[in-house]
Amino acid sequence: MEYRKRMEKVLKVIEERGLDGVVFVSPENIFYFTGAPFVKGSVGKILYLSKDGTASIIVTDLDYQEALDFVDADAVRIVKTEFGERPSERLKKISGKRIGFEEQQMSYSLYDYLRKDLELQPLNGLAEKMREVKDEEEIRRIEEAQRITERALEEALQSFAKGMTEVEIASEVERRIRLLGAESYAFESIIASGERAVYPHGKPTKKRVEDGESVILDLGARVGGYCSDMTRTFFVGKPKQFLRDVYDAVAQAQNEAVRAAREGITGKELDSVARGILKEFGYAQYFGHGLGHGVGIDVHEGPSVSPRGETRLTAGNVVTIEPGVYIPGMGGVRIEDIVVITERGSRNLTNFSKEFIEF
Amino acid sequence: MEYRKRMEKVLKVIEERGLDGVVFVSPENIFYFTGAPFVKGSVGKILYLSKDGTASIIVTDLDYQEALDFVDADAVRIVKTEFGERPSERLKKISGKRIGFEEQQMSYSLYDYLRKDLELQPLNGLAEKMREVKDEEEIRRIEEAQRITERALEEALQSFAKGMTEVEIASEVERRIRLLGAESYAFESIIASGERAVYPHGKPTKKRVEDGESVILDLGARVGGYCSDMTRTFFVGKPKQFLRDVYDAVAQAQNEAVRAAREGITGKELDSVARGILKEFGYAQYFGHGLGHGVGIDVHEGPSVSPRGETRLTAGNVVTIEPGVYIPGMGGVRIEDIVVITERGSRNLTNFSKEFIEF
Repeated sequence: MEYRKRMEKVLKVIEERGLDGVVFVSPENIFYFTGAPFVKGSVGKILYLSKDGTASIIVTDLDYQEALDFVDADAVRIVKTEFGERPSERLKKISGKRIGFEEQQMSYSLYDYLRKDLELQPLNGLAEKMREVKDEEEIRRIEEAQRITERALEEALQSFAKGMTEVEIASEVERRIRLLGAESYAFESIIASGERAVYPHGKPTKKRVEDGESVILDLGARVGGYCSDMTRTFFVGKPKQFLRDVYDAVAQAQNEAVRAAREGITGKELDSVARGILKEFGYAQYFGHGLGHGVGIDVHEGPSVSPRGETRLTAGNVVTIEPGVYIPGMGGVRIEDIVVITERGSRNLTNFSKEFIEF
Repeated sequence: MEYRKRMEKVLKVIEERGLDGVVFVSPENIFYFTGAPFVKGSVGKILYLSKDGTASIIVTDLDYQEALDFVDADAVRIVKTEFGERPSERLKKISGKRIGFEEQQMSYSLYDYLRKDLELQPLNGLAEKMREVKDEEEIRRIEEAQRITERALEEALQSFAKGMTEVEIASEVERRIRLLGAESYAFESIIASGERAVYPHGKPTKKRVEDGESVILDLGARVGGYCSDMTRTFFVGKPKQFLRDVYDAVAQAQNEAVRAAREGITGKELDSVARGILKEFGYAQYFGHGLGHGVGIDVHEGPSVSPRGETRLTAGNVVTIEPGVYIPGMGGVRIEDIVVITERGSRNLTNFSKEFIEF
């Protein structure tokens, strides 16, 4: 990974803004700049990049050995805190005075602690914006995570049957995601069937999947720190004509949006491609979320592909395209691919069939 | 759950401090006060509690139906944002002026957005401190999650064998955690063997477990929103006498600390019970983390049981006791139980054997 090249961009901002350095506290951003292994949601590591070019990861004894073994010691110094000392305390001892920080990631309480001694300036999404444009290696990892998820779902699909619980379905896919080589899951699997399929975030329960229902599966793997994200909707036995119609509408909206994804289009415009088609079918009021989002180290990152997405897509963006229709009391359908924006349009990183699949 | 009783405590603080209301943004705290289903790490829901006693959950269309179906509508109003409107925008329209907020959970950027129109006051860990003392139902859920993890590990242990990869071991336990009735995992499983066992946060890799190595398994399930947390260290074939000695020392330190856990002892004092024993054995310098932490809706919450833990334990606290010894180049051992502090001492919620287990 081009860690040093990434840091150079930050050093330029440090210079332009007359800062003494920059501090990163989110495990995702620290991973992005150094490759330091991270536990999702964990805190306790700090990356400090000084205007002289020195990068330091401050860790407690807990994560010291792992940082030492996995981070390039020529590029990054590993600073171990004294026993009982917090990384934020040590930061104050080694940092300059005028410091840029991640305003979206830093908690108010850490901000409030640091500002007593430092002069803090928000970086205005600097790292988050850099992460929106992926390089080849990043795309390769996302694609590998996607291949694993697809193979896991293809294999697991053979075992799906009427009467299984949502949890059993989740278990069949998840264990294959592990065994096929992912380091972990990209997020908690969503499996929602029948009347529960109206919950876009519905986690698997002991509910059994029954004849005529749709089953939404939203799944992802993590490879080399990068996430994949895919949704497919399957059907149990013979579904009502109504659900078939919804499926066709969502599939058409999804395909058209994938085709429309290219450099220069805003997230908002792309969202409206899918939303317009669902409107023609009379389903737009049941599509209650944005069309998509960026995917990378976080499964949800920029750029936004929603009615709020004012940013123009650019080559290297990896975004989901996931229209859904959720009708209370009736059921739901969602179809999701990830695409990478290229200089000539876009490339769909998802190969899994979008045919109407019954089991 | 006693949601209303919990809110009453916040209302008292609102009155004492002359606030117009309080805002919660973390999914965990919103769940604690309302039972609203949450996706770990997701944002977008806001809970506003007004001084008149009205509680409102502000959600986008995305999570509206799920909130409607799972939250007690007599106790909490569900407010759906306009399409494209953020919950934080709506909050400004329905809230009073002087608002308390979660300073540990709110990002600086949300704080900065809200403070333009509201007068914000940190709540100084109010919700987090309330959550440290569990009621019977909360303890029941943690215990159920723990029973599931134990049963999953007992069953999976039968299939463990020399030459399996860490990932295969993870997969065997995780799928059983799912199938035995957990709604998800409490955290990403830690499986670290041989030289990797020195990484306290080591995630499973394709490394095979080999003769003579120790294998650390740190596992948890989530039931009814609550986490369990347990670590066991197994051995492959016949380990060196050295690893046996380390195991005995860690087991003794762990058992003594479990015995010492009671009301009135500080986290720091409890930590020093285990640390003192490891010092006698000459291993204290290899025990590079705190003894434990609270467990509940978050797998890491208060109170701290570490050299920084100044708070006295109190009945209803649920804490981990997890000494570990990690010797670079040699290997590692950790043993972890969770205990609930009671009025008569403590009760160990962990039943899994701590005998020396080889496979």
